[in-house]
Amino acid sequence: MSNAVTIFDTTLRDGTQGEGVSLSVEDKLKIARRLDALGVSYIEGGWPGSNSKDIEFFNRAKELKLSNAKITAFGSTRRKGIAPEEDANLNLILESGVSVATIFGKTWDFHVTEALQTTLEENLSMIYDSIKYLKDKGLEVIYDAEHFFDGFKHNPDYAMETVRKAEEAGADWIVLCDTNGGSLPDEVADMVGTVVERCKAPVGIHAHNDCELAVANSLAAVKAGATQVQGTINGYGERCGNANLVSVIPNLQLKLQYKVVSDEQLKSLTGVARFVSEIANMHMPLNQPYVGSAAFAHKGGIHVSAIMKHPKTYEHIEPERVGNKQRVLVSELAGQSNLLVKAQELHLDLDKDNFESKKIIQQIKDLEHQGYQFEGADASLELLLRQASGQLEEAFTLESFKLLVEKSRDQSVVSEAIIRLNVQGENVYAAAEGNGPVNALDNALRKALVQYYPDIEKMHLSDYKVRVLDDKDATAAKVRVLIESSDSENTWSTVGVSPNVIEASWQALIDSIRYALHGKTKSPLKESVPERVGIVNH
Amino acid sequence: MSNAVTIFDTTLRDGTQGEGVSLSVEDKLKIARRLDALGVSYIEGGWPGSNSKDIEFFNRAKELKLSNAKITAFGSTRRKGIAPEEDANLNLILESGVSVATIFGKTWDFHVTEALQTTLEENLSMIYDSIKYLKDKGLEVIYDAEHFFDGFKHNPDYAMETVRKAEEAGADWIVLCDTNGGSLPDEVADMVGTVVERCKAPVGIHAHNDCELAVANSLAAVKAGATQVQGTINGYGERCGNANLVSVIPNLQLKLQYKVVSDEQLKSLTGVARFVSEIANMHMPLNQPYVGSAAFAHKGGIHVSAIMKHPKTYEHIEPERVGNKQRVLVSELAGQSNLLVKAQELHLDLDKDNFESKKIIQQIKDLEHQGYQFEGADASLELLLRQASGQLEEAFTLESFKLLVEKSRDQSVVSEAIIRLNVQGENVYAAAEGNGPVNALDNALRKALVQYYPDIEKMHLSDYKVRVLDDKDATAAKVRVLIESSDSENTWSTVGVSPNVIEASWQALIDSIRYALHGKTKSPLKESVPERVGIVNH
Repeated sequence: MSNAVTIFDTTLRDGTQGEGVSLSVEDKLKIARRLDALGVSYIEGGWPGSNSKDIEFFNRAKELKLSNAKITAFGSTRRKGIAPEEDANLNLILESGVSVATIFGKTWDFHVTEALQTTLEENLSMIYDSIKYLKDKGLEVIYDAEHFFDGFKHNPDYAMETVRKAEEAGADWIVLCDTNGGSLPDEVADMVGTVVERCKAPVGIHAHNDCELAVANSLAAVKAGATQVQGTINGYGERCGNANLVSVIPNLQLKLQYKVVSDEQLKSLTGVARFVSEIANMHMPLNQPYVGSAAFAHKGGIHVSAIMKHPKTYEHIEPERVGNKQRVLVSELAGQSNLLVKAQELHLDLDKDNFESKKIIQQIKDLEHQGYQFEGADASLELLLRQASGQLEEAFTLESFKLLVEKSRDQSVVSEAIIRLNVQGENVYAAAEGNGPVNALDNALRKALVQYYPDIEKMHLSDYKVRVLDDKDATAAKVRVLIESSDSENTWSTVGVSPNVIEASWQALIDSIRYALHGKTKSPLKESVPERVGIVNH
Repeated sequence: MSNAVTIFDTTLRDGTQGEGVSLSVEDKLKIARRLDALGVSYIEGGWPGSNSKDIEFFNRAKELKLSNAKITAFGSTRRKGIAPEEDANLNLILESGVSVATIFGKTWDFHVTEALQTTLEENLSMIYDSIKYLKDKGLEVIYDAEHFFDGFKHNPDYAMETVRKAEEAGADWIVLCDTNGGSLPDEVADMVGTVVERCKAPVGIHAHNDCELAVANSLAAVKAGATQVQGTINGYGERCGNANLVSVIPNLQLKLQYKVVSDEQLKSLTGVARFVSEIANMHMPLNQPYVGSAAFAHKGGIHVSAIMKHPKTYEHIEPERVGNKQRVLVSELAGQSNLLVKAQELHLDLDKDNFESKKIIQQIKDLEHQGYQFEGADASLELLLRQASGQLEEAFTLESFKLLVEKSRDQSVVSEAIIRLNVQGENVYAAAEGNGPVNALDNALRKALVQYYPDIEKMHLSDYKVRVLDDKDATAAKVRVLIESSDSENTWSTVGVSPNVIEASWQALIDSIRYALHGKTKSPLKESVPERVGIVNH
């Protein structure tokens, strides 16, 4: 146990305090299952005293069969001037049925007098009474010392006294909180060291990211003797967020050799981070350490040629250890070498001295200049490369489309699309409705093609993103649409760019279907085998 | 000078290696001006040896009249086996006309033999010759010791020898680079300390964020004696990015009392960070430390009531010191207290025991449940609150709209909108084209309203964002549109939500104009004064 660190996840509680983060009860249950599989020890599910959604979560959480984690409910120390038995917050924790309570109390004298508006003495009783009450009811109690570091800086004696009171009342953990996120690693290390020295109870750290130092502060605390780290997946949380467990865990385990989760669990890290960002409907930064899609992506030409020789040259760990992977990006900066690597992956015949190759490289540069980005649209890039090397047969060509969106006096909105294609030499018209314009186009397109390519029913669009380029032009600005499509085996992404959101969506939509109908084969050698790409009309 | 730290910005060079970051020459010049005003000492403009765009930048940069910063050009040490005079890269630096060259060389023996494929001895000569050559031509030379920390861990003697060679050749700065971003603050501090002790030349730090520790590593280096920090605005850069100067600067200045920029310059930090994110067309995270719009935003009910008593309770610095400001967010978590604060700000008569207030709080909760977010749409929220308190007179009502988007065989796309409004009791029809469907609606709306409200010409839409909610439903998913509008005095934001991107845009568009025509007044007491809100028809 000597070098083990316990992870306390508060994505479901502190994480939802972040701007834009909102989770339904169902979402919370799904995330709890993933956190358990990742190997965290505590999952803070919410604050039963603050809203009914959290109470519902604790009721439903009883059905979760977790193998590692304990569910804990959050709350404050009792209100001033009353007995803990009379405190609604504390009683709601008991009613929630959890075996672990996480209680926060005031450490900073200024907060006691200014925010709570009570005496320093009464605050000590509030801490003691609340913990004692919950301990007497048989709960494990984690004590969060709110504003510990600010409190210690202003009045170290009083701060230490609050912690001693918590310990005296039987707290199982003393967690030191940098609530305002203003502390620096060296001071965190010093103060954690002091508490570890003076406390018998194990000590934890709860850091916020207001100085972009929450991960560093968490590591500093562990090195100073803390054995519990509180944080959230992707660092979601109030203001600038909480310590990002997705960075804390691999830093502790891979860099400092602490025992946090198993090697297998560590490999699920990228998956968990992306899952939570998806469920929370938060944009996941490409450049997020360890798990972002750019974390092991190489763009600069020199870097690309070096990692081809040896990945260690520009990668600090093997991406697979956290479930991520290496990527080579195509961009104007990289010159042609990245593009040639891509063509090689596809077994396409492009080499840098060839005239056709130069033409396609120029074409891709021009498109990037217009706002296309192929870094996130591999399928559109592949279509361009295949076209350039003469290895693409089009399954259909578009003649024209008309789209009508109508909002009538009763406020109902109707979207209709009419399209005209040429498929296998025939003119095909189709019209369809949709619950939005792009959906209407998608429906019409499928209607037109399904008679020729029945397998189109097996693919579906799994993601649709719209990015406004050059915001300054507002509604006249160019937009970039990325569409992700999937069938039972594969997932591919396509891109469209236009000042017209319908046209941009259309381009990405068409590419997605062109790609599907061309047949996604691992090796181009198999491409001419009809069984493999059954839906293509060779 | 004892506690001064020099800032070296590489947004224009290393920053553009980040995925999704791409800057035109014009963009780079604009950013350089802002960096200079912020008070950085060096602006690395690019790598003349890598592409022609960078050469053009250095030509145009000569016209910049900078008051603080020197422009520097980046490049590698000479190629193996040739004289520096024959090296195209080095000569392009000279031709770029800069007075400062930044040259990187290999420190890590493994890189010398594996990536460069040369001898350790030759690498030392490459470092010496290249620096000497540039020094002899009269340039200031900053030497970037690539992979210094990894090199030092593997072969400390050789790593120190490369640094000594650079110093011997006359390098003005020795900058230690954590190129792969895998180092931790304590090891950075140790190794920087060693170099500072053994080198006469001043030492700098260049950190990458692969462990989410680039800011912490930069601070650790400065505390160990480094006097230059290299980084980028918003931390843009290869893979997980570079040290984020936007966090490094206030941490050094406000937390550690180093002298970095003036207090006035520090106040421009939020503006610079947002400007660069705008120009680079990168999404700026709401929760970015110090400068994000959520950095001093309060959502939790307890936090909100405490900061109303005293901001220091939950704010680590005064947001104004970095040019940011406090915000109170409205959300389901906050219960009604935040909403009441908002109503108070608007001098609207809402109190929590009032029936009307409960109704509007419920209405806002329902809308949030449907996907609306008022955190970033203050004007839409204000319209709802004013409507609820009977203080909104509508300038017009919408009867219906029709929108047609047509792509013809020649691939041209036309968007046309026809709208029908009721304005001041009259039916008004208008039709207009646009270069996209939303632009067409916007044009038609203005055409219909301008005769009644000529001041509508003074406002314009300054930002348009589309966010797909619940990506899983792809093109049938709900989208949320945020529109930002401005006139000469004010900026306001509105929101719309629908599975139909046109309808969602329409809602945000209409709100924007309703808000403008209602008249944006600082105090509602002035609202009934016609001069102030001239365009409203009371």
